Parts: sequence; C-alpha cells; structure tokens
Amino acid sequence: MIISPSSIGRFREGPASLSHSVDAITRCTLSRRPDGVDAQFPVGWRVRLRFTRDVFAPGNGMLAEVFEQEAGAGACRLLAVVDGGVADAQPGLIASLRSYVEAHGRRLRLAGEPLIVPGGERAKNDQGVFESIVQTIHDAGLCRRSYVVVIGGGAVLDAAGFAAAVAHRGVRLIRIPTTALSQDDSGVGVKNSINAFGKKNFLGTFAPPWAVLIDSNFLTTLSSRDWRSGLSECVKVALVKDAGFFDQIANSVDALNARDVDVMSAILRRSAEMHLAHIVLGGDPFELTAARPLDFGHWAAHKIEQITDFRLRHGEAVSIGLCLDSTYSMLRGWLRKEQRGRIVDCLGGLGLPLYDAALQRQELLDGLDEFRQHLGGRLTIAMLRGIGVAFDVHEVDRGVMSRAVEILAAESLRLLRP
Amino acid sequence: MIISPSSIGRFREGPASLSHSVDAITRCTLSRRPDGVDAQFPVGWRVRLRFTRDVFAPGNGMLAEVFEQEAGAGACRLLAVVDGGVADAQPGLIASLRSYVEAHGRRLRLAGEPLIVPGGERAKNDQGVFESIVQTIHDAGLCRRSYVVVIGGGAVLDAAGFAAAVAHRGVRLIRIPTTALSQDDSGVGVKNSINAFGKKNFLGTFAPPWAVLIDSNFLTTLSSRDWRSGLSECVKVALVKDAGFFDQIANSVDALNARDVDVMSAILRRSAEMHLAHIVLGGDPFELTAARPLDFGHWAAHKIEQITDFRLRHGEAVSIGLCLDSTYSMLRGWLRKEQRGRIVDCLGGLGLPLYDAALQRQELLDGLDEFRQHLGGRLTIAMLRGIGVAFDVHEVDRGVMSRAVEILAAESLRLLRP
Repeated sequence: MIISPSSIGRFREGPASLSHSVDAITRCTLSRRPDGVDAQFPVGWRVRLRFTRDVFAPGNGMLAEVFEQEAGAGACRLLAVVDGGVADAQPGLIASLRSYVEAHGRRLRLAGEPLIVPGGERAKNDQGVFESIVQTIHDAGLCRRSYVVVIGGGAVLDAAGFAAAVAHRGVRLIRIPTTALSQDDSGVGVKNSINAFGKKNFLGTFAPPWAVLIDSNFLTTLSSRDWRSGLSECVKVALVKDAGFFDQIANSVDALNARDVDVMSAILRRSAEMHLAHIVLGGDPFELTAARPLDFGHWAAHKIEQITDFRLRHGEAVSIGLCLDSTYSMLRGWLRKEQRGRIVDCLGGLGLPLYDAALQRQELLDGLDEFRQHLGGRLTIAMLRGIGVAFDVHEVDRGVMSRAVEILAAESLRLLRP
Repeated sequence: MIISPSSIGRFREGPASLSHSVDAITRCTLSRRPDGVDAQFPVGWRVRLRFTRDVFAPGNGMLAEVFEQEAGAGACRLLAVVDGGVADAQPGLIASLRSYVEAHGRRLRLAGEPLIVPGGERAKNDQGVFESIVQTIHDAGLCRRSYVVVIGGGAVLDAAGFAAAVAHRGVRLIRIPTTALSQDDSGVGVKNSINAFGKKNFLGTFAPPWAVLIDSNFLTTLSSRDWRSGLSECVKVALVKDAGFFDQIANSVDALNARDVDVMSAILRRSAEMHLAHIVLGGDPFELTAARPLDFGHWAAHKIEQITDFRLRHGEAVSIGLCLDSTYSMLRGWLRKEQRGRIVDCLGGLGLPLYDAALQRQELLDGLDEFRQHLGGRLTIAMLRGIGVAFDVHEVDRGVMSRAVEILAAESLRLLRP
C-alpha cells in the first residue's frame, strides 16, 4: 500500500481527535503442504510520539506517564544514557533527571547511575560505546520489561537503540532526541545502528521505540549549523508528500533564520508526524521490500558524506542531494523549472549548502550502486513530478546526472561572484 | 489469544491441504492526541518450513525453490556458514553444497567461500565466531536481499542467525538444522542469540528465518546422546499441548532406541510443526508479553545447565526439568499420580536422565527469579493439569518444590539399587 500525499494531508490537517487507520489486515496463517508448512504472522508494535517543552520539569507528567507498570511489579526500572555533548551544553540535565525520577518514585526507579557517552558520529564509529551500554544494561540487571531512556543526538540514539534492541533480545527504549535532525526524522524512526568495517550503519536492527518524547527546549542550545541542518529532512518530506508543508517552510524562512523556537518546533513536529505516518501507513515499516520513497536525495547525500569524510553534516549533505535530484528531475522533464527554483531558493534561504565540489568526483555515481546494495535487489530511488509528488525510478541516466552537477556548480559560482 | 490443545490437534491431524488461520487482525492506526500521536502497526513475517531427506542431492529441488529471485536481479547470492562438527562428520558436505549451487546456477550463486565455524556452545560463547560471520557477510558484499544459509546444530544456528539479523539490519536466513534438538525445536523458532557476560543468550534478536529445511539424513550421524537429547523437547510440547502426541512418543520408545530414522523423523516433524504453530498462532511471536507456555520445565533446565557448567546437554537438563515440574504438579494435586508416572517412564525409557544431584543445590531455586528476570515482569511458568493440558502459575511453593526434588532423588536411588 502506497500512501498518497492527499491522505497524509488529511491526517495532518484534521482535528486533534482524528484517528487515521489503514486496512493492512494480516492474519496468522499456517498452510500445509505435502513437504511442510508455510507460516505467516504479524507482529504488532506501538509507538508513542509526544511533544513537549521542558520534559524534566517537576510538573511535567508526560515522561512518567509513558512508562507502563506491570501489575504487582512496583516502579518501572530505567537506565538513562546521555549524550556527552548534551550533558555539557546543559550542565543541570542529569540533576533534573534524578529529581524527576525521585519525584515520580511510585512509577519510576533508576536501575543504575546515568551513563554518559560521547556524542556525535564517534558514538557509532567506536564499538566501545555500544559495548559500554550493553555492559551497563547487564550490570543494572535490566529485564525485557525495563526501560532504556536515551537523551541525545541521532548518533547516540542509534548506538543506544542498538544496544537496547539486542540486550535480552530487546529492552524497551524511550528516545528523547535533542537535535533538530533527530527530532524531525531519525529519532522518530524504527531503526538503530552502529558503523562497522568503515560502512555507515552496517550493524543494526529494526526495533520500534516504546516512546519518543520531543522537547523543544533542547533547540535553544543548538549551534546555528545544527539548527539549520535539521531542516533539510523537513524539506525532503514536504517535497515527497505535501506541497502545503513546503509552503509552510518556505514562508517561515525569516522566522527560522531568526531562531524562532515556536515556528521551528511546529515545523519539526509536522515533519516528525509525517515520518511516523509514512512508517506506519507505508505498508513496509521494516523495509522488507525495496521501495523507500522517504529517501529522496539520499543516495547522493550518503556518498557526499563519505567522500568529504563527514566534513558535512548529514542535513547539509541531504540539502545538496535534494538540489541534485530536483535538478535531475527538471532535466528529465518531470519537474517544472519554476518549481525546481523554489526548492533551491528555500534551501538556500535557510542557509543550507546547495553544492559541494565533492559532486564533481568520479566516484559520486558509485553511490547509486552502493544505495542499491544497501536496499537490496534493484535500484529504487525517488524523483519528483512536482513539489509534494514523488515517484520511483529504477534507472539513472549518468549523462543527465552529470549535467545536473554542472548546473549546480555553475549556480554556485554565480552565487560566489555577485 | 491462547491456542487450545484441541485446535493444535485439528491442525496436526487434518489433511495435507488444510490451512489453519486465526483472526489476529491488526490494523495500522495513527491516533491523534493533543500532545502527539499513538501509532500501531503490524509487521508481517513469512516462514517456510520444509522436510526432506538429502537436501543437497542433485535431484532435490527443495532448497533451490525456497530462494526468491528479484525481477531482473539474476541468481540469488548466498553465503554458507557450516558447523565444523557437521563438516567433520560428513566430509563430503561442502563439496555437495558446491555442486548443488553449481547445478542450480540460474537461481543460486555462492557469494564467497563457505565459512566453517566451531560447533557446540563455543559458537555462542566466543564472540569471535559471531564477528567472523559478520565480517564474512561484509566481505562477500551481501545485501538485504541476499541469503545466509547456515548448516549446523542449535548453537551455530543461533550465532549465525544473530549475525545475519544485524548485518544490514537483516540478511535473509535459511536454516538447515542438523541435530535432533535443533530440528524439533530451536531451529524452527524466531530467536537467535549469543552468550555474553556469562549469561546464556544475553545478546540476540527476534528475527524469523526466511526458511527452515529439515533433512533427516543428518540424524544418521548423531551420537547416541544427541539422538536421545533431542527427544525431550518433543515430550515437552506433547505434555503442554497434545496427549495424542505423547502417546505416539511413548509407543515409539523401542523403535527410537533402535534408531529407526523414519519413526524419529516423524516425531521430530510433529514437534517442529507444533513449535511453529505455537509461535504463529500463540499471539505473541516476539514475546512482548510475559507468558510462554512452551517453556514447561525450562526454569529448572536452564539453572541445572548452569550449575553443572554445561556438563549436561540442554535436552538432558530439560528432561530433568520436566520430571521436576511434573512431580511438583502432582504434589500440588493438579496432575494425577498415574499420569506423572507415565511421563517419568517415557523419559526414562528413552534413556534420558530423570534426576541430577545439582537439583539438591541451594541455588536451584534462584533459577525461578532468573527466569522471571529473563521473561521480565512477574514470574509465569507452566504447570500440568494432565498430559496435554498446561496452565500458568505465578508463584511457586519452595517447600513443595524441595519435596519434588526429594522424590526424584529417592527414585533415582531405587533405580541405582535394583
């Protein structure tokens, strides 16, 4: 089942009480054959996505309420894993967390000291971080009905999520994403991973989090670069699914550049909800088939990150990838020139990069094959027929893609020489 | 939903064409709340269970047919992982596998050299085995639509299954279990794991295999001890679900002791199908809630294995665990004395141990708490009201359990002094 932009629109714009559901009915079936049995069965998951401000404030009951107490089992045991970068930026964070758990002592209990781990890509590159989290889950005696609460950026969420997913074959995971990017995209998803053998995300699982709590307070301490970088995934999901959302972002450029937290958090929320809706209603949450239309612009983004040795943030590389595939869509006659111009102007207006010299590198187009290998099976990438209207292609004309790169290069030169 | 013994019975005894299905309907649902969204969604899985003899014989198409070719993607790429113990016992195995893949070259292609790993518990205790499999998956360039084919006993299936589950967040896994125990129980399940921090199965995932092919040829080279050990899980599933199956096993004791492969493989097949049916129809394949009625006798079995430092095979420890909890069920007045006698006689007739001095150890009853921790939440263990009729209890009377141990000890002394 492919979700249409219009049904996502209805979900978004309906009253707060609206429930949206899709008949993805699956039955448990055992079919006898002379030589055996074919078995089919669904596994049901539930994700609680919440938005708040100041999640550890004494009067904020949201976090305590997402824990589920077992009958007769006393307070829920939790282990906190905290991104070192966040702990540095908010020196009172650990103390607030402790006070919060103490104040909710009937429902919550710390199973051990909060574990502080290095932030950023190091959390995923250094297998020792994953191992220290698994070790701490063991030392704290967590069981499958206990909770890991992870507070941090996307990389720490990923490493802690992987550890929680494989310890006891899965301890419950509550994510509190702290960067714009993790609040609007990765922190909402059903994946986790660490890097291995020099390959990004080589080891990981699909494991839906128990809950995701998004606290707009964390936005206030972001660097300017991290603030901007989170927005490219919002633009991406708007381009693929919802022209109205694109208009909202384009009309908010000035407020976003002025760091208006209310405007920002409304946009991040809409993006997070659309990402979750895509996972839930898209029919293939664990990507068991090949199509992943929310990966627009990502084949190039992944490769650019790698070529530039992660000098660029993921969100910056995505911005460039969006420009590249929008330009390719225009050159192929799918996307009108004016629409492609609005996309590039919006990203540029947000201060996101539109081009990098890495695009000129011979190995860029190898990214297509690596992306195919990552998906498995044949290549499937999204292209645009219009803002808010994506479709899948299975082949890319390398000559046309090279021309798209040239156009972006020429435009960047014009920007440099006003 | 709890499956009743009678519905399993119908499934077993129906014609070969019968399909059994249960209305475990799950919908994709997004429910708006003022502070966020609750999302529910099912993930659908399919497991292909097949029974055969001589799986790599040139004319046997079964293995080749379970691979699914992607449109336009050529032959399916597979990596073989082979239990060193099996490769030693069947020196022609690797050559047969190679010839088989070559003969089916239109459908199948080896992605690398078959990887031979140590068999037995070492495969799970030594993290290096897991790492070597992950490394080989990487080196062979497998993608999420490629296959790992693992041939071996339960420990090797577990370690390779964990590696396949986390590489690229899941490469397709085809299990070819070679021991009686893995053919009738663990090889059919949806779990994988390795041991860590001295805890059995501490790291792992729930990951349904793509296919399980059970080849009765492997039974012919089993040691007498491994032959017997596989049968205790058959007795267990019969006790919990199906009195008719228990009668079948009890009536086959002589044939089983004479190593009749046809009688053995029919019993293993019935057990494997019942284990799969329990997973599929039991309503909680990933054990997200606490009840696991197929774990009858297992709290003690796990603890006995640990106390005896794995001197006992898992199947031997399970036999003792079955005797213990049957005796406890009798002492509590749930199970008739005559029925308890039939259970002990059947296990004894198969040459399985009924008692071990480890039962007298003070720490045995700690196993109850460790089992609770493993399940998470409150203690849930199965007891018997009759052969084929299990029910859950949440408390164990330690005094009564100690008396059950004394009874088994006294009986074992009588057996020793005829």
